[in-house]
Amino acid sequence: MPARSRQEERSQHTRQRLMAATIECLVELGWSGTTTTVVAERAGVSRGAQLHHYRTRAELVLAAVAHLAEERREEVRREVAALPRGENHTAAVLDMLARLYTGPLFQAALELWVAARTDPELRAAVVPLEAKVGRESHRLTVELLGVDEGRPGVREAVQATLDLMRGLGLANTLTDDSARRNRLLREWARTLDRTLRETR
Amino acid sequence: MPARSRQEERSQHTRQRLMAATIECLVELGWSGTTTTVVAERAGVSRGAQLHHYRTRAELVLAAVAHLAEERREEVRREVAALPRGENHTAAVLDMLARLYTGPLFQAALELWVAARTDPELRAAVVPLEAKVGRESHRLTVELLGVDEGRPGVREAVQATLDLMRGLGLANTLTDDSARRNRLLREWARTLDRTLRETR
Repeated sequence: MPARSRQEERSQHTRQRLMAATIECLVELGWSGTTTTVVAERAGVSRGAQLHHYRTRAELVLAAVAHLAEERREEVRREVAALPRGENHTAAVLDMLARLYTGPLFQAALELWVAARTDPELRAAVVPLEAKVGRESHRLTVELLGVDEGRPGVREAVQATLDLMRGLGLANTLTDDSARRNRLLREWARTLDRTLRETR
Repeated sequence: MPARSRQEERSQHTRQRLMAATIECLVELGWSGTTTTVVAERAGVSRGAQLHHYRTRAELVLAAVAHLAEERREEVRREVAALPRGENHTAAVLDMLARLYTGPLFQAALELWVAARTDPELRAAVVPLEAKVGRESHRLTVELLGVDEGRPGVREAVQATLDLMRGLGLANTLTDDSARRNRLLREWARTLDRTLRETR
């Protein structure tokens, strides 16, 4: 392997360790506990190497959340592709999305979003990421449900599903809300199927 | 007026100023900026008087959020009572709820909830408040929509409405999401009316 490739590989490995450590810190310690020093220590990466890849805490956290969001979307895509198509497809898709919105990605993003609310500089950086994550999540949900957005009401039904997921994620922040969530999602699958029925 | 009553009145006034200042601080500065010192200064209350009423930051913030939640529910109740009953009643109720979930109460509660997520002591104190606010919001929504929870699916439809509101609140945290939210709520009013139609 040529020297350049070996170095690129090491660089990528360092970046991945830093991003994974950042998510762990956000989930366990929240935004205020996620300092560049704590992340570098946890990742086992020198401060110099860290600064080479990510100059600021904001840069590091944004990269980590963007990367995890992409990774998780791909996972969900693969898992849904492996599902049998049938009666309970909508319910299975909702289950998968709910796992996304109650897992580490949601918790890490929540810490970033809330910190950005009262920090104008951070907010300016997070707003484009929020728009991108929102667009990609919408596209993924349309694809997973196999619906046609051209039909009236479909776009709003998909959006409502994602807003509902966001709300369910928040409701799961302090306590395990899974029993209530599962009942609610069973009903939501029925509502959604009824709303989308004519359009598929 | 007897001395005791005058003192009680002063005490209540002090508490109200402290609680209002706490909400302002949470909304503007976030949890980390909402220290007892900053709140006392903003309220124009001495540290001694503050400590007399609220011994810790957690006590002060919990009292402020609980108080504001109750106040806002009463406001919504009065506003809805003044609405003409008719075709667009569901849409009007949803508008009212959306205002609650995008206003200072939601922002202040969000700061508290997120801080509690990674702080076990604070979390233990917030969990009962979350349960209470959840129950009261549910009861209010059932009352405003005038629905019968005994019918199958109604309880879940009301819960979904509140989870949706929570998600819409979060979607409005960094940017003004009102145009999208209004379109979405018009569709949700139709879906909700269809779901609840047989039960009213």
